[in-house]
Amino acid sequence: MADKKLVEAITSMDEDFAQWYTDVVKKAELIDYSNVKGCMVFKPAGYAIWELIQRQLDDMFKATGVENVYMPMFIPESLLEKEKDHVEGFAPEVAWVTHGGLNPLQERMCVRPTSETLFCDFYKGDIHSYRDLPRVYNQWCSVVRWEKETRPFLRSREFLWQEGHTAHSTAQEAQERTEQMLNVYAQFCEEVLAIPVVKGRKTDKEKFAGAEATYTIEALMHDGKALQSGTSHNFGDGFAKAFGIQFTDKDNTLKYVHQTSWGMSTRIIGAIIMVHGDNSGLVLPPRVAPTQVMIVPIQQKKEGVLDKAYELKEKLGNFRVKVDDSDKSPGWKFSEQEMRGIPIRIEIGPKDIEAGKCVVCRRDNGEKTEVNLADLEKEVADILQDIQESMYNKAKAHLASHIYEARTKEEFVKTFAEKSGFVKAMWCGERECEEKIKEDMSVTSRCMPYEQECLSDTCVYCGKPAKKMVYWGRAY
Amino acid sequence: MADKKLVEAITSMDEDFAQWYTDVVKKAELIDYSNVKGCMVFKPAGYAIWELIQRQLDDMFKATGVENVYMPMFIPESLLEKEKDHVEGFAPEVAWVTHGGLNPLQERMCVRPTSETLFCDFYKGDIHSYRDLPRVYNQWCSVVRWEKETRPFLRSREFLWQEGHTAHSTAQEAQERTEQMLNVYAQFCEEVLAIPVVKGRKTDKEKFAGAEATYTIEALMHDGKALQSGTSHNFGDGFAKAFGIQFTDKDNTLKYVHQTSWGMSTRIIGAIIMVHGDNSGLVLPPRVAPTQVMIVPIQQKKEGVLDKAYELKEKLGNFRVKVDDSDKSPGWKFSEQEMRGIPIRIEIGPKDIEAGKCVVCRRDNGEKTEVNLADLEKEVADILQDIQESMYNKAKAHLASHIYEARTKEEFVKTFAEKSGFVKAMWCGERECEEKIKEDMSVTSRCMPYEQECLSDTCVYCGKPAKKMVYWGRAY
Repeated sequence: MADKKLVEAITSMDEDFAQWYTDVVKKAELIDYSNVKGCMVFKPAGYAIWELIQRQLDDMFKATGVENVYMPMFIPESLLEKEKDHVEGFAPEVAWVTHGGLNPLQERMCVRPTSETLFCDFYKGDIHSYRDLPRVYNQWCSVVRWEKETRPFLRSREFLWQEGHTAHSTAQEAQERTEQMLNVYAQFCEEVLAIPVVKGRKTDKEKFAGAEATYTIEALMHDGKALQSGTSHNFGDGFAKAFGIQFTDKDNTLKYVHQTSWGMSTRIIGAIIMVHGDNSGLVLPPRVAPTQVMIVPIQQKKEGVLDKAYELKEKLGNFRVKVDDSDKSPGWKFSEQEMRGIPIRIEIGPKDIEAGKCVVCRRDNGEKTEVNLADLEKEVADILQDIQESMYNKAKAHLASHIYEARTKEEFVKTFAEKSGFVKAMWCGERECEEKIKEDMSVTSRCMPYEQECLSDTCVYCGKPAKKMVYWGRAY
Repeated sequence: MADKKLVEAITSMDEDFAQWYTDVVKKAELIDYSNVKGCMVFKPAGYAIWELIQRQLDDMFKATGVENVYMPMFIPESLLEKEKDHVEGFAPEVAWVTHGGLNPLQERMCVRPTSETLFCDFYKGDIHSYRDLPRVYNQWCSVVRWEKETRPFLRSREFLWQEGHTAHSTAQEAQERTEQMLNVYAQFCEEVLAIPVVKGRKTDKEKFAGAEATYTIEALMHDGKALQSGTSHNFGDGFAKAFGIQFTDKDNTLKYVHQTSWGMSTRIIGAIIMVHGDNSGLVLPPRVAPTQVMIVPIQQKKEGVLDKAYELKEKLGNFRVKVDDSDKSPGWKFSEQEMRGIPIRIEIGPKDIEAGKCVVCRRDNGEKTEVNLADLEKEVADILQDIQESMYNKAKAHLASHIYEARTKEEFVKTFAEKSGFVKAMWCGERECEEKIKEDMSVTSRCMPYEQECLSDTCVYCGKPAKKMVYWGRAY
């Protein structure tokens, strides 16, 4: 039985989802507001999740041939301006450095909001021949965008991410890499974070500033709102022409490279919270849980109890395990473990020790099992595996039951008025129509999914001939 | 025999050490200058060394209870100004952000040159009781200092590092943590980087801005110049008083915390180059070599040769191994492997395959051994181990043979005129004397070593009574 005091400190999800989110972020000690407006402090429990994401995503990148590099954090203004669409997209929201030490700079520089221009500038000098291609580089860093409204993980003026930037000799290879990395993101979300996603292409209105095509994975939060969780862009040779990145091909002619970029950020931690969390707090998938097992000794002052707890920790050396040996009450410890989303709690007291058993309690569904101490290691492995799968299945069922279809404008409006989730509907392909939908309903196109269906012959909103089926939704 | 062409591209160490360094950095493809003045691009071969340093140093930190966090990259001017000595030390060399998007900021902010002020600001709100202590936090990030002259790895306007910041309930605990982290750095340099160091305390003139005491590890480069390789600072309660960081102790009274900070940066990669490198290029200690073994197939077009090379790579799965299957000549491949400092080269051709053997060549001393393919895995493990140890022993012998003693001013001046290395000599403890030595001889106090000796009763330079034995040197 968890202590009520800590749990009551958070708002119920159904009452006020936004407040619930803020409460969890704070009570699970993931993040704190800083005195630097719009910037956050990642506390140990929050940063440790990011470290686990980094290691596993980075391993997946490297398995596809990605190499890590590090570019400067500053972009001179003239460099940012080289690609027209790109600068229009980013210039209004960058932070400008104007002085170095006591002196004004000759040219002001912005703190990178993203690093396409820096990579292009580097590739221009580094790529000469087809032998130098492909270049498949990535960097882990922080970027700055001067947002007006901020929310922990979801939107802040500085955030952490990875940004991959590649250069290829053919358009086809660039397109393949764009889709390959989108698939890596989708696989990572599903297998590591237990978050199912919808894969598709962004409309021109929603694509990245300077890209030919942007692909996205969209996840559905518990409240039915969408969260763009990773994007992969094909630039064609647009940046290459703006920056003059050419190479001598096998046929001895000079050609422009084709480029891609792709990114995933600490925003994804917001998705973990809003997909899996419940009214007792955070629920972490075992693969990104900094602590997978919390051992709570019962009557810990009795002889042998703490020793046994430490012994179990030793025994579970293959997992990330802690013993809560603080002087708090067991009930309070249970609440904390639940609030922090630790997947498994082990309770061990004098009676358990005598019986050679302990109690294993799952965070995801509250199930309690008595386990023989001799079987503990195998049981913990099995339960962690089962939690990971169950969480994915639960999220998948939630996603499936929150995808609706609309064939007429009336149906489209009614569905968004009554339900929350994705609505599949046909679209004419015109920007004006998409803008009108956003204006009228605060609904945006999330993506044109890979798996297209023909729901009707006409656009759900304007009635013109339909071109694409789109997932529409309200989004973070 | 390595191809001459690539090797001749670098200047000899003895001819011009500075040029040799620049050549190696460039030819081993570690780093590139960027178009952002004073900032560098870490290329894959350079960044991969940093990743190996990060993982191993981070593991050592965590074994001592360190938790990672992430603070904002910006410091509002008023925050930077809170500790008097600190702002005086750093304000002249920071980059100032004055605009966010299209609007001027109400208060300008600098890009962090170091994060004491941010951690203090956070701790002030986060620490209330003795139960909240100690706080042992660290972050991996980049920092900016507006240097006038820059050199790859050694000094650049932006560099990567880790900075640990701790808070304790007693002065003693802070002092213990300060020394503990210095010992971690020393152990890391010796065991992982094969670089022996001298441990000691900085004089007041050389200590960190705002610190009560700074401890340092000093390494000796091949040219006899010193490189400060890691520092650990005890702040006492100075920052706590400036920022008002108080806690209620067990005795129910309000006390100030005692703090430390400690850092190691990408500068240490410069030390690896200048301690171990030779006239054929970089020489990497196996523990931080991104590629530990390069397999070079001989007559690779002959049937079975490339297959065998890939088979050996598979067999050596416990190590970081690559096959150079490019269409370059073996001689050219040898040169590249040597230039990049890859510890082991395996040569395998048709005759070797027939005999069930291969040739294993060590980068550190050029030794070649014929090895039975059946024994390869064990041999490679042993040789890597031996290279790691030999490199350390060689560096240690170089250090030992470049430490001199001086008892009189004449001897002191003469030694620095004729030799390069550390000179041990007694010092009066006065700042003016230390400043005069720097002015007259371009020599600085590197540290007051832990292992003190009494070489004479008087200061080597001014003749006043001696207080401390100091390691003096010319430094990067």
